[in-house]
Amino acid sequence: MTDQMRRITLARRPSGAPVPEDFALQTGPVPAPGADEVLIEVTHLSLDPYMRGRMDDVKSYAPSVGLGETMTGQGVGRVLTSNFDGLAPGDTVTGITGWASHAVLAGAETRKLDPDMPPSTALGVLGMPGFTGWVGLTEYGAMKAGETLVVGAATGPVGSMVGQLARLAGLRTVAIAGGEEKCRLAQEVFGFDAAIDHRAHEDARSLRKAVAEAAPDGVDIYWENVGGKLLEAVMPLMNTHGRIPLCGTIAWYGGVAGDGIDHLPGVWRSILVKRLKISGLIVFDHWDRFPEFITEVAPKVADGQITYLEDVADGLENAPAAFIAMLKGGNTGKQIVRL
Amino acid sequence: MTDQMRRITLARRPSGAPVPEDFALQTGPVPAPGADEVLIEVTHLSLDPYMRGRMDDVKSYAPSVGLGETMTGQGVGRVLTSNFDGLAPGDTVTGITGWASHAVLAGAETRKLDPDMPPSTALGVLGMPGFTGWVGLTEYGAMKAGETLVVGAATGPVGSMVGQLARLAGLRTVAIAGGEEKCRLAQEVFGFDAAIDHRAHEDARSLRKAVAEAAPDGVDIYWENVGGKLLEAVMPLMNTHGRIPLCGTIAWYGGVAGDGIDHLPGVWRSILVKRLKISGLIVFDHWDRFPEFITEVAPKVADGQITYLEDVADGLENAPAAFIAMLKGGNTGKQIVRL
Repeated sequence: MTDQMRRITLARRPSGAPVPEDFALQTGPVPAPGADEVLIEVTHLSLDPYMRGRMDDVKSYAPSVGLGETMTGQGVGRVLTSNFDGLAPGDTVTGITGWASHAVLAGAETRKLDPDMPPSTALGVLGMPGFTGWVGLTEYGAMKAGETLVVGAATGPVGSMVGQLARLAGLRTVAIAGGEEKCRLAQEVFGFDAAIDHRAHEDARSLRKAVAEAAPDGVDIYWENVGGKLLEAVMPLMNTHGRIPLCGTIAWYGGVAGDGIDHLPGVWRSILVKRLKISGLIVFDHWDRFPEFITEVAPKVADGQITYLEDVADGLENAPAAFIAMLKGGNTGKQIVRL
Repeated sequence: MTDQMRRITLARRPSGAPVPEDFALQTGPVPAPGADEVLIEVTHLSLDPYMRGRMDDVKSYAPSVGLGETMTGQGVGRVLTSNFDGLAPGDTVTGITGWASHAVLAGAETRKLDPDMPPSTALGVLGMPGFTGWVGLTEYGAMKAGETLVVGAATGPVGSMVGQLARLAGLRTVAIAGGEEKCRLAQEVFGFDAAIDHRAHEDARSLRKAVAEAAPDGVDIYWENVGGKLLEAVMPLMNTHGRIPLCGTIAWYGGVAGDGIDHLPGVWRSILVKRLKISGLIVFDHWDRFPEFITEVAPKVADGQITYLEDVADGLENAPAAFIAMLKGGNTGKQIVRL
C-alpha cells in the first residue's frame, strides 16, 4: 500500500464561528489494523453541527477534540484489511472514522451496511441524524394526531425526519428554514403543511406572527434545533402541556449576540404556567434503540414515504469549508463529504 | 345573624412587590347559601406565593383577581348553614373561600376534614402545598436512593415536604433558605443533611460554591421554587439526567433585576448537554391524585415522620401585611391567617 492517509486536524480553537485557519490538512502513513481491527478506506464523511462543540475546550457530554488531533465524526467506507471475524475486504461499514481518508477501527465498533441502500444514507436519514429525530419524538414528543409541531432547520437531516414522522402521525407540521428555496423544499419534498423563512423576519416578534398564522391552534411540540430568535418567537405560542425536545441550539453555537435582556425568567415562567416538558436530548444515550429505528424507518425510506436531501462536497480538503458554510446555514439537507 | 362579612379585596394592581395600598378591607352583609350550597365561617386562611400572580392582569393558568374582587385563596371553616346533603352545621371543611370571614360555596366544592387533625394542616402539610411537593416528586422527580436533592424556600410548606419525602426515600437533601434561623430549622426540624443561607452569599458564584460543598456528588433533583440567583448557582452543578420540577420562581415575582446578561443560552445548553428534564408543575392538573396523597402522607404526619411549621397571623385585617412579608421571605413555614 503506497497510499498516504490524509486527515483534517484541529489546528486552533475557534473563537465564535470557525474559520479555515482553525483546521489543517495533514498527511502520513496509512496505519495497520491490530487484532480484531479493520482498516477502512473512507468514502463518505458526515458533517454535523455537534462537531462545533467538540472544537471547544469545555466539559461537555463528549470529550473535546485536542489540538492537533483529527476532527471527530462518522464516516462510511470500504474494508481494505480485516482482522475481525464477520467483516471482509470489500464490505461497506460505518463508524467513527474522523475526518480522514482512512481509519483503523475495532471491528466491533463498526456497523455493516445493507448493500441495497446508498451508503451515504447511513450518515443521514438512516444514521445518527435520522435516528436523533426518531428517538427524540418517540421518547419525548408524545405525538397525538391533530396536534401541531414546529421545527427549525427543517430541511436538515434531523428536522426533515422530525417533520416527516410527525406528518405521518397525523400532526400539522410547520417548518422554519432560512431562505425561500429551503421553504419550497420543506413543503414540496418533505410535505410540511407550512414553511416560514426566518430570514424574512427581522425580529422575534415578526417571526412569531408568522408562526402564529401557520399554527392557528398553537404549538404542541417545538423541536428545538436552533434557540435564539426562533425560541423567543415560539415560546409564547406553546400550548398547555406542550413538549420541547431540546436537540440543539445552533443559533448560539458561534456565541450569543445579547440584546441586554435576560430571556430566562420569561422562558422559565412559560414552562411553569404552561406545564411544558423540556427534555435535553443527546442521541448517544439511546443507541440501544437503533435496531428498532432501522426496522421501522428503513422500509419507509426504501418505499419513499420518508425522503431525504443531501449536500455533497467533494474531497476531504473541502471538509472545513463545507463545515463552516453548514454552520451558517449554507447547506440544504444532510451535509456529506465524498472522498 | 347580625354578623357582617369582612373581606380583603384587590384595590389596585401592584407594580413589582405588593404594598398595603394594593388591598382594601370591605364589609357587607353575610350572604345566604342557595341550593346545594353551604355558608362557612372561615377560621383559617392560607397565604401562598401563587396569589401574587393572580394580582396581575396577565393571561395565566388561572384567571386574575379583578379589581374590587375578593383576593382568592383557600380557607378552612365551620359550616354555619347547609343546604347540601352530607354537610351539617359544625362540620369543618376546606374550600376556596377567598380572603374573607365568610364564604358561600357549593357543597360539592368543599372537602370535609378529619376532625382528628388540626384544621390548619388542610392548608399546608396536608393541603395544596404539601400535595404539590408530593405530586411533583412522584410525577417528575424519579427519586433514587443515594441521589442528591436541592430545594430552595426549604422551610416553606412545599420545600419542607419535598425535603422530607426525599430524605425518607434515601436521598441526600440540601436546603437553601434565607437566614440562619431557617437554616437551623431546616436541619433540626426537617432533617435536611445540609442547609445554606442564601443571604450569606452575595452572588451566584459564591452560592454555587456552598452548594457544591453540600452536594459533593452533584445535584440530581433541583426542585425549583425560586429562580434567580439560586437557579444560576445550581444549574452548573446538575448531574447528567437530572430533573428539575419547576414549581415556582418566587425570586422573579416582583420583577426581574437584570444584570444585562441573557442567562437563557447557558441554561438551554445545560439542559441539552446534561440531558435534563424540566417539567412545569401546576398542582391543579393533578387533583385526581389527592386521595392517594392523603392515604400515603396523612399517617406520616400523624406519627411525626413528616412534620411542619406554621406562621400564624391573627385577624383578616392582617392578611395583606402577612402576605407582603411572606413574598419577601419573612415567614418560616406555612403562612396561615387565623380569623
